[in-house]
Amino acid sequence: MSLADTLNPTAAVLIIGNEILSGRTKDANLPFLAEKLGAIGIRVREARVVPDVEAEIIAAVNACRARYTYVFTTGGIGPTHDDITSASVARAFGVPLERNAEAVARLERHYAPGALNAARLRMADIPAGATLVDNPISQAPGFRLGNVFVLAGVPNIMQAMVDGILPRLAGGPPIHALTVSCELAEGRIAADLATLQDRYPSVEIGSYPYFRNGFFGVSLVLRGTDEGMLDRAAEELAAMVRRLGGTPTLTRGTKG
Amino acid sequence: MSLADTLNPTAAVLIIGNEILSGRTKDANLPFLAEKLGAIGIRVREARVVPDVEAEIIAAVNACRARYTYVFTTGGIGPTHDDITSASVARAFGVPLERNAEAVARLERHYAPGALNAARLRMADIPAGATLVDNPISQAPGFRLGNVFVLAGVPNIMQAMVDGILPRLAGGPPIHALTVSCELAEGRIAADLATLQDRYPSVEIGSYPYFRNGFFGVSLVLRGTDEGMLDRAAEELAAMVRRLGGTPTLTRGTKG
Repeated sequence: MSLADTLNPTAAVLIIGNEILSGRTKDANLPFLAEKLGAIGIRVREARVVPDVEAEIIAAVNACRARYTYVFTTGGIGPTHDDITSASVARAFGVPLERNAEAVARLERHYAPGALNAARLRMADIPAGATLVDNPISQAPGFRLGNVFVLAGVPNIMQAMVDGILPRLAGGPPIHALTVSCELAEGRIAADLATLQDRYPSVEIGSYPYFRNGFFGVSLVLRGTDEGMLDRAAEELAAMVRRLGGTPTLTRGTKG
Repeated sequence: MSLADTLNPTAAVLIIGNEILSGRTKDANLPFLAEKLGAIGIRVREARVVPDVEAEIIAAVNACRARYTYVFTTGGIGPTHDDITSASVARAFGVPLERNAEAVARLERHYAPGALNAARLRMADIPAGATLVDNPISQAPGFRLGNVFVLAGVPNIMQAMVDGILPRLAGGPPIHALTVSCELAEGRIAADLATLQDRYPSVEIGSYPYFRNGFFGVSLVLRGTDEGMLDRAAEELAAMVRRLGGTPTLTRGTKG
């Protein structure tokens, strides 16, 4: 909550594909993007999953690009009929989709002679004015148009693309996280936790119950850009847990 | 794509929680809901992930409930300060949040004498006019208000809630799926596949490349409500794969 008030740049992730909405495929791209972006101080504030329908993609791209510093789309840039992301993003920006000479050259180097057919050449159709995003795995590029990055849906390709673009993004103060875990029920600590949150408005405190190794417990995650403030809040939180009869375990990051 | 033209009821899934947007937690609720709803003919057409921020939750609930037959929210109904879903949904509908006597009774039966403190009692604050959704695991209920179902975020509780409400939903013709897999590159089959899609507009054909056991291949998923039509399209697709030099494998469902 409180991170919303900071000056960190923001992002939305737009996951495009019927396979996610049918339950066939579990998305793995949002967690990857969220962690990578958070590490350079860009907060993912929203994600949407939309089907392979042009009007839906256009509406989501335009809603998100007006609202957040960056938008990252995943999926729909392959060679088949259901790959309509590039054309949809071009329409969202009101620019033509053009065969991109550099993209064609990359595909020509990648495919065996004669294998670069019309369907594969569609992957070189890029909105006018966009800059290419490198794909070191299978060459078919993503692209950046304005504040929108269009990336592959296949996770290892998407990840390689992200590694290439991260250095070009304007980040903010890194978002740090500390986790205090304990085997107390959420409901036992809730009142004191709310008081602590009130006293540390610049620290975002999340409470996530778990059931692990036969024990119920809760992970209390503190996130913020001020490490000193995080440390102080975590110390108070650990003291609070001890006062309530629990044994706090402190971990750097969010996984404790 | 073509399923959009059918008379099946639709749904949106609204995933509420900073932990999903930070990458800490991988959502498992969308795939579960999508499969369960698809099996009774309700198509999930959109999903959104929003932070624990009241204005964001209100905006997403109102956008989705106006547009889809059903909305399912997950997360944010626990006892801690960051659990604001119930209050936000009440505001989205413009109704008061009230202490619900039946919800209090359920919590009283669940907790040991003296353990039902003020924080836990917050879980009995339900929007006026809502009906409770049973929680057989930890009793704190979800609720239904209009076409919006408010469910827990913890997967095993969410799943138990869904099992309870599925019989109460008005479904549509079940959505069936067949998968034809082969070890041909997507780009080799794309042109013929597009022709097949054009000839079967009521079958949604998705193309999902994979890399498995050292081989590249593609899973071609056919979805639709008309099983006879699906079978015919799958037969044609298998013949097409053989014509292109591949060996098709046909599987019921989407996981082939």
